[in-house]
Amino acid sequence: MNIGIVGASGYTGETLVALLADHPHADLVAVASRSQAGKPLGVGIPRLRGSSIADLPFVSAEIETLARIEVDTWFLALPHGVATTFAQALLQAGKTVIDLSADFRLSSPETYQTHYGNPHPAPALLETTPYVLPELTPTDAWSQAKLIACPGCYPTSILLPLIPLLRANLVDPDSIIINSYSGVSGAGKKAVETFLYCERNESMKAYGVTNHRHLSEIEEQLSAAAGKPIQVQFTPHLAPMNQGILSTIVVAAPHTAGEAIHSCWESTYTNAPCVALLPPGSQPDPAHVSKTNRADMAVVKDNRTGNLILTCAIDNLVKGAGGQAIQIFNQLQGWPQHTGLPL
Amino acid sequence: MNIGIVGASGYTGETLVALLADHPHADLVAVASRSQAGKPLGVGIPRLRGSSIADLPFVSAEIETLARIEVDTWFLALPHGVATTFAQALLQAGKTVIDLSADFRLSSPETYQTHYGNPHPAPALLETTPYVLPELTPTDAWSQAKLIACPGCYPTSILLPLIPLLRANLVDPDSIIINSYSGVSGAGKKAVETFLYCERNESMKAYGVTNHRHLSEIEEQLSAAAGKPIQVQFTPHLAPMNQGILSTIVVAAPHTAGEAIHSCWESTYTNAPCVALLPPGSQPDPAHVSKTNRADMAVVKDNRTGNLILTCAIDNLVKGAGGQAIQIFNQLQGWPQHTGLPL
Amino acid sequence: MNIGIVGASGYTGETLVALLADHPHADLVAVASRSQAGKPLGVGIPRLRGSSIADLPFVSAEIETLARIEVDTWFLALPHGVATTFAQALLQAGKTVIDLSADFRLSSPETYQTHYGNPHPAPALLETTPYVLPELTPTDAWSQAKLIACPGCYPTSILLPLIPLLRANLVDPDSIIINSYSGVSGAGKKAVETFLYCERNESMKAYGVTNHRHLSEIEEQLSAAAGKPIQVQFTPHLAPMNQGILSTIVVAAPHTAGEAIHSCWESTYTNAPCVALLPPGSQPDPAHVSKTNRADMAVVKDNRTGNLILTCAIDNLVKGAGGQAIQIFNQLQGWPQHTGLPL
Amino acid sequence: MNIGIVGASGYTGETLVALLADHPHADLVAVASRSQAGKPLGVGIPRLRGSSIADLPFVSAEIETLARIEVDTWFLALPHGVATTFAQALLQAGKTVIDLSADFRLSSPETYQTHYGNPHPAPALLETTPYVLPELTPTDAWSQAKLIACPGCYPTSILLPLIPLLRANLVDPDSIIINSYSGVSGAGKKAVETFLYCERNESMKAYGVTNHRHLSEIEEQLSAAAGKPIQVQFTPHLAPMNQGILSTIVVAAPHTAGEAIHSCWESTYTNAPCVALLPPGSQPDPAHVSKTNRADMAVVKDNRTGNLILTCAIDNLVKGAGGQAIQIFNQLQGWPQHTGLPL
Repeated sequence: MNIGIVGASGYTGETLVALLADHPHADLVAVASRSQAGKPLGVGIPRLRGSSIADLPFVSAEIETLARIEVDTWFLALPHGVATTFAQALLQAGKTVIDLSADFRLSSPETYQTHYGNPHPAPALLETTPYVLPELTPTDAWSQAKLIACPGCYPTSILLPLIPLLRANLVDPDSIIINSYSGVSGAGKKAVETFLYCERNESMKAYGVTNHRHLSEIEEQLSAAAGKPIQVQFTPHLAPMNQGILSTIVVAAPHTAGEAIHSCWESTYTNAPCVALLPPGSQPDPAHVSKTNRADMAVVKDNRTGNLILTCAIDNLVKGAGGQAIQIFNQLQGWPQHTGLPL
Repeated sequence: MNIGIVGASGYTGETLVALLADHPHADLVAVASRSQAGKPLGVGIPRLRGSSIADLPFVSAEIETLARIEVDTWFLALPHGVATTFAQALLQAGKTVIDLSADFRLSSPETYQTHYGNPHPAPALLETTPYVLPELTPTDAWSQAKLIACPGCYPTSILLPLIPLLRANLVDPDSIIINSYSGVSGAGKKAVETFLYCERNESMKAYGVTNHRHLSEIEEQLSAAAGKPIQVQFTPHLAPMNQGILSTIVVAAPHTAGEAIHSCWESTYTNAPCVALLPPGSQPDPAHVSKTNRADMAVVKDNRTGNLILTCAIDNLVKGAGGQAIQIFNQLQGWPQHTGLPL
Repeated sequence: MNIGIVGASGYTGETLVALLADHPHADLVAVASRSQAGKPLGVGIPRLRGSSIADLPFVSAEIETLARIEVDTWFLALPHGVATTFAQALLQAGKTVIDLSADFRLSSPETYQTHYGNPHPAPALLETTPYVLPELTPTDAWSQAKLIACPGCYPTSILLPLIPLLRANLVDPDSIIINSYSGVSGAGKKAVETFLYCERNESMKAYGVTNHRHLSEIEEQLSAAAGKPIQVQFTPHLAPMNQGILSTIVVAAPHTAGEAIHSCWESTYTNAPCVALLPPGSQPDPAHVSKTNRADMAVVKDNRTGNLILTCAIDNLVKGAGGQAIQIFNQLQGWPQHTGLPL
Repeated sequence: MNIGIVGASGYTGETLVALLADHPHADLVAVASRSQAGKPLGVGIPRLRGSSIADLPFVSAEIETLARIEVDTWFLALPHGVATTFAQALLQAGKTVIDLSADFRLSSPETYQTHYGNPHPAPALLETTPYVLPELTPTDAWSQAKLIACPGCYPTSILLPLIPLLRANLVDPDSIIINSYSGVSGAGKKAVETFLYCERNESMKAYGVTNHRHLSEIEEQLSAAAGKPIQVQFTPHLAPMNQGILSTIVVAAPHTAGEAIHSCWESTYTNAPCVALLPPGSQPDPAHVSKTNRADMAVVKDNRTGNLILTCAIDNLVKGAGGQAIQIFNQLQGWPQHTGLPL
């Protein structure tokens, strides 16, 4: 089984390369990058110096070249907009494509245009591409798909705790307040003043207040789970750490005990190796899931206010990006979900 | 004007000493510490090595000794419970006392016992001690006080944005959801595994969920402002930074425009040199108020949800503790609030 | 092949557990801890929540109990002094012991007493226990050993670059100046004020100047390589990071070109998967070797001064402790050195 | 006394503005910036929001405009090369200029060309401009100067401990090995991938090995102190912190006791309020001098090796840049050196 990656210069791409290099059932035979073509992987990505693929040279990210490489499944770690072009061409060449960008996450071209400001470049493809959260999207909806959209990092940390509760009608869908905290790698490896060490160190800042692009993805998925259109208040923050996301969600559930929430989660995630439900008294921490594909989740019921406080921690680059893409790939192949993934 | 400090081994005490050493109208003549008595200040607190008071020796923290020192006003930076004993003795010796502990922040012995688990050691004193948030507590209520309770760090960052809006009836008092993020110095200088460098670095964690001790102080003050008992959802988090607090507050205000909020704040804080209202599009950041006595505040109205997102950043050790105590002291003396305080 | 670990509450122990849990040829069947006995590993060590051994309970660290467990090789991650007692008992029970403490690193009881202040508790055992730096200690000297001393973290980062050059007589052995920078995990998980987040963040500090305990180990090994007693200037520093060590070594080599150094390293490390020699122009960085068992090394010749600047980066908990212990274990079993080790 | 600043968008410029805004004897009347002209200072530099000059607008950095402003002394916080043009024009307009760039730090155009790769744009001016380390450059050499070159940050931390010892002939001038560690703000506020948060966090890296530009400045000053040309080994490193430099210097002094070094420092720095000599057993730490104009210094004599280990910590942006420039300015005016400077 030959696999390839397009786009390896960002943090997500690096993570994908590092994880796929060690996958027991798949051979990483091609890593394409515009800026690094020709260089060995171990030179372009210093942390891979000692790995088994350190000497593999980056290939050029030209579509025709890529289409001819003997690769069964391509992973795309490309900027929004760019991914669509590659996805179309590789599909036409008969390949399977797992896309980590935001290009195919929404279900309708209209919603896409509202949030991204321009028409979707391939509206028909958008409508047929499944969005797959591996623990929650029914497998029959995507087991034959040739193109799959992976969830964003914030949405992963929000949908995992909330979707089962909305499906089971255990919480008030109109009362959801989400605050999320992301490590700086979530912004990518862009040379921008805001992301300089001295700007983010000793800092904690809300951004994208009321209009972060992930909001549309979050609301679309939560609405589907609730069976009706819902709106949430989502406030993302940049925290001074490299990796990790913590989401703290407050939702009204005056008539539901904390135990009922825990039971609902347990029955949903009983066969989910990548989700851990924390015992009462423990709180999830990105430090505990760092470099793993695990989501740690906890719930506290406040009997005074009637609210639930749900918390979920993931590594934004692994369970929130590269690791989850591999988890999807594993399921497509019929392998255990966590094959080759650190937990 | 002679002043003194009891308790200087923690981060709050250090901050108080550093700020008062430079105060233009007051002489810091005594700093008392149980563990450091006899040592010069510049040895016990290395960052004061070069200051004007580096050679002043710590005095012993024995109550009778302190009561005899020629000091007009004592600042207490002591652990909860310990402060009361010192406050009582120094009041009896005719001194003015500004207390930074939580001992006198609540108004009733009953509430104190509920949250602290034991009866208050001086219930009569508790009931007569004013709680002073310098920008918001009317001066006539405390200008003659001999003992004053300073607000906690989280409450300062929460009450400054919310109290004016509740007083003006601009927001729904029953819908307040608060998430706060504190630097690790908020936990004090305790040698506890949880606060080791390697435990907090690359970490972000909720704690005290539903029952942090500051909750009682926050609700008491907000209820007073709203004119009726209210409950809030308060979730504090530890963030990987030394100093600073950011609070992100969501509150329903479907019928109030963001501009109305801004106007209300402007009229409240027009003569408040320690509060800065940020222009639209800017978000407060603890990095911007580090080592200052300033609170930076912003509001965003989400027209879609009808909610306001209020954010407020302070330095937990300055505006949230030592600096605010000096601001109160300045007002007691009739000096400009920010005398000797970096802004 | 059954293996066990004694001492898992520190950072080294945690790292060992995490790595051995995934070892392809060995079964981790017992993890002993005084403080956590009875608890599942996934509760005592939150980052192991999702691992295959999350439900394995810690066993009690009583020597007689451990001696009866069906384990072939025990890894000791215990404080100095404590390790000897366990090593003696487990050897008597016929087990193989790989000791990560400093108890058996020196070759003579006299040197031990000079640096540790007390007589060695088992001088005869000390003299016969091999000190094994897997890339450099000839295998025949230790392939039959039942007790092995693993190198310290600082020494690993210093001996790997220097020993080959001293053996080949390429540098002046009397001119070695070493500055090393360690992440805070090197100090262990001790609840001590010095290692609190706020004390180490934004800090950089020399410590143990002229008399760090690793000095004796470093000088003993370098002297053996040089064939004569040598002294070095070793100044360790604490750097504000969790993991990693960088050592910067200046040594006079007026008559040796940088290329000769590189060649010497290349011939020494040609079959060493855990050592990477960086190309000219690159400098090693603990960030690049984080969570791997790799040592990255570089050399720059200063033609102006005649000095070499050697730099070496490792992860102090992996190549400097737990990973290197497993590398030794792999070699003892005749498996490839890096079996089960991330590179 | 009116003063002005040209170049306020970098970290050094911001620090200068913040310090000069509070200077008791000088009025900051003009801050020039190419990119921010017209904006209020409090908008361009968020941490100045609450300061007395928050509403002062940036002026445009056009030379003719600046020459006409009623300013007695201009501080230049400009990139290398750019500073010369401004210095020439402002001198011609009769102003005093304190230059924080590297343009006038070396004494000869030849040395400049060797290290900067191009001819100096104003060689005659270079030769007559004094380089002023306020504690060590005799005042009569520069008290009438109209243009002054301020030392670099690394050199400040190296020259303060070494120059007195070389002048007194107490150490071997041919044996100096310097390792320095700088916070990331030393690299300026350039949007470059290397200085992104995720690249520097958990990292520690040597750079500019053998050829950092500050080397020429360091050697020129040390040679003058030694009375003969000397070479040093200087290896700078980037450490994961915002501010601060620590330099660790090893120098042979087999016949000099540590006490003699301390005495030499004491007699040199007895009237130097900005230098603190640490007692035996203490080590300097950038955390202790953060945001102050103080240099902390310590010496340890290693009787075994005959070497001294000298350590010096400063804040790179204050004592290493903006603060030191003000210290020079204060001396030029005949005010106490530390007027308006936090210690």
